[in-house]
Amino acid sequence: MRIYDIIHKKKRGGALTKEEIAFFVAGVTDGSVYDYQATALLMAICLQGMNPAETTALTLAMAHSGDMLDLSGLPGIKVDKHSTGGVGDKTTLVVAPMVAAMGVTVAKMSGRSLGHTGGTVDKLEGIPGFETALSMEQFFATVAQCGLCIAGQSMSLAPADKKIYALRDASATVDSIPLIAASIMSKKIAAGADCILLDVKMGSGSFMKTMADARALAQAMVEIGQGAGRKTAAVITSMETPLGDGIGNNIEIQEAIAVLRGEGPADLRHVCLELAAHMFLLAGKGELAACRALAEEAISSGKALEKFAALVAAQGGNRSYIDDPSRFPTAKLKRTLPARKSGYIGAMDTEGIGHTALALGAGRATPGDSIDYSAGIILHAKTGDRVEAGQPLATLYTSSEEKADTATQQYLSCLTFSHTPVEKPPLIY
Amino acid sequence: MRIYDIIHKKKRGGALTKEEIAFFVAGVTDGSVYDYQATALLMAICLQGMNPAETTALTLAMAHSGDMLDLSGLPGIKVDKHSTGGVGDKTTLVVAPMVAAMGVTVAKMSGRSLGHTGGTVDKLEGIPGFETALSMEQFFATVAQCGLCIAGQSMSLAPADKKIYALRDASATVDSIPLIAASIMSKKIAAGADCILLDVKMGSGSFMKTMADARALAQAMVEIGQGAGRKTAAVITSMETPLGDGIGNNIEIQEAIAVLRGEGPADLRHVCLELAAHMFLLAGKGELAACRALAEEAISSGKALEKFAALVAAQGGNRSYIDDPSRFPTAKLKRTLPARKSGYIGAMDTEGIGHTALALGAGRATPGDSIDYSAGIILHAKTGDRVEAGQPLATLYTSSEEKADTATQQYLSCLTFSHTPVEKPPLIY
Repeated sequence: MRIYDIIHKKKRGGALTKEEIAFFVAGVTDGSVYDYQATALLMAICLQGMNPAETTALTLAMAHSGDMLDLSGLPGIKVDKHSTGGVGDKTTLVVAPMVAAMGVTVAKMSGRSLGHTGGTVDKLEGIPGFETALSMEQFFATVAQCGLCIAGQSMSLAPADKKIYALRDASATVDSIPLIAASIMSKKIAAGADCILLDVKMGSGSFMKTMADARALAQAMVEIGQGAGRKTAAVITSMETPLGDGIGNNIEIQEAIAVLRGEGPADLRHVCLELAAHMFLLAGKGELAACRALAEEAISSGKALEKFAALVAAQGGNRSYIDDPSRFPTAKLKRTLPARKSGYIGAMDTEGIGHTALALGAGRATPGDSIDYSAGIILHAKTGDRVEAGQPLATLYTSSEEKADTATQQYLSCLTFSHTPVEKPPLIY
Repeated sequence: MRIYDIIHKKKRGGALTKEEIAFFVAGVTDGSVYDYQATALLMAICLQGMNPAETTALTLAMAHSGDMLDLSGLPGIKVDKHSTGGVGDKTTLVVAPMVAAMGVTVAKMSGRSLGHTGGTVDKLEGIPGFETALSMEQFFATVAQCGLCIAGQSMSLAPADKKIYALRDASATVDSIPLIAASIMSKKIAAGADCILLDVKMGSGSFMKTMADARALAQAMVEIGQGAGRKTAAVITSMETPLGDGIGNNIEIQEAIAVLRGEGPADLRHVCLELAAHMFLLAGKGELAACRALAEEAISSGKALEKFAALVAAQGGNRSYIDDPSRFPTAKLKRTLPARKSGYIGAMDTEGIGHTALALGAGRATPGDSIDYSAGIILHAKTGDRVEAGQPLATLYTSSEEKADTATQQYLSCLTFSHTPVEKPPLIY
């Protein structure tokens, strides 16, 4: 078998066999396929596509390129959740403790922020002492003790995906649904859960800008999961506006705690309840109505909040920050942006708002950048809301006037005003 | 400017600007664009195409990546010729002396054989003493003395093309008409001739298998040449069968000498006369009819043969081989293949016949391979010819029984027989 022939076949629009795909993945991992051959094939895949069988074969080959976690020694059904990345998306912080609080095990590896989207691992690291770089032994021990663990991605999980992702990132071959689906699912399958719930974000703040793309990605991932023998489902949720009111690491942790307390923004609470209900459904906890009731109960009983505090303690964090979120340090500088005129917010460029948070210090432009945990934005008005001139639109949190100036311009350019009422976008499609 | 954005634009089917193309070519040449980024862009070009303006910009950027020959110090009009590669294509050996014999300067750099196609430089090196690795001074001195020089490709000519070609060759991104056109024309433009005649081969033995592809390549190259201020024309000639009767280095030199003597196979003679006539036409030697007469005269007067002998002497070769071609050494082993049944030759897989010659030792499978100058094939019957059972189809020349056995099977599998008469394919389209 020669990589040349495999590239040529895909260039001509042919479907690759399982063996050809395995040859490519093994070659990328051991270096016998050169990077310049890999990117040629990746570009051909971007432009010619892959059918479901090819996408599943690619996923499994990447999953098997490293460790495959065996969670079968842990009690009960293990459920994992993945979001395709959004702005203000703190659902994992709420949903994982909700689900674990009701007896379903969650052993989860999460990502870091990159570009305009946040990362669960960064948010958790804002809690003093919280450790995300766990050894496999620590990971299993935490799950066994707590029924829940949220760790950073292990380097030994799907190394082929890491290599291929780095090449895609440098060669403009990221935006391909089969490649995105295979990248996400290879890590989820290697991470070993029995059930996988996918939260596919759609809209201006997500990677999938259209319903057709979001549905295609959701379907591709569900097919892969089922093909790999995992119970898999997907929910398509909105990223037309940021989720909840807060963006930024400490800001989002505080908002997640509010939801766990039965408070917090209604949109975030609604999405968390739905995601948790679907995780219960996958785990076989009854009909959807019963699962929704279970999700409500996780919050109203206080069990989810207590599970989150227990998780923080189990991973070395200071749980007093969860019991009293006012302990989180606040930003040096706080600036409120008033509306210049009265009207309705017609639309939000949610990706632009993510970049604004980045400019304030909340994220990373490149993987090596450090994060200002207290930086971010609190939104006072979202799409569909009426604002009067002078009323606050948002509050920016950052470390310098200069950053605040840049972000002010950036934030205001992300809003579209309307003189007539505008409907709020749906939360779940 | 970022290469990422350039790749992304082409992936989306956008047209690149002159500046973006120059940025890519400069980056490939100086290494600031990584190979894995270059191949991603090359694959995107293969699949999304390039318009004429982009193709011309790519050609000129590659031409200007190294030395640009200035032939203006040499007397008269300088004409160059390029063939896109075929089997048994020895036209340069005939046409270049024909044109130079009638007072039109030919300063030509030629390629080596690779894959199933032969190379003029290899054929000339079969003449004892003939030197093709000339310095620029030697090259200019030979043209000044002789009105003709045929040298190997200088390493300092279009280095970006060499780099990009090597990447295309390893990443299955060779078969793209804009990339092929730009590669050929970058070298021709850097080589400095005023007029360029392109011989685009079409059919089973060439890289262009269909008339549509051949015409598209011819048109792309002519547009580039004209855009660069060179008088450029293209002739599309057939590679449905090998050209002439001989394939192999010494065999082809002998056949070329036969044509220069007014003998040799009719198809080869006809194509050479037409190519020479079109070179005269480009050089402003009158109407096509007058140019055809001039071409006939070059042969009938003996001037072309004398010019070839003078060229051989000027480049250090032993001209007695030209005066007496029987001096060329013959192969150790000679095997004639008889027809097993009577009938007509319906079609020839000309590329397969090129590979057969390669198996006999006449070419290179990889650039480092050495060549057996006396190896090759003489065809006794081509498409449209009637053969009786037992009559010779071809004679193989090689160095071992083993090679002859392999080549026998290979050669016979390249022929299609027909019980009914078959028309001969046209020579020139």
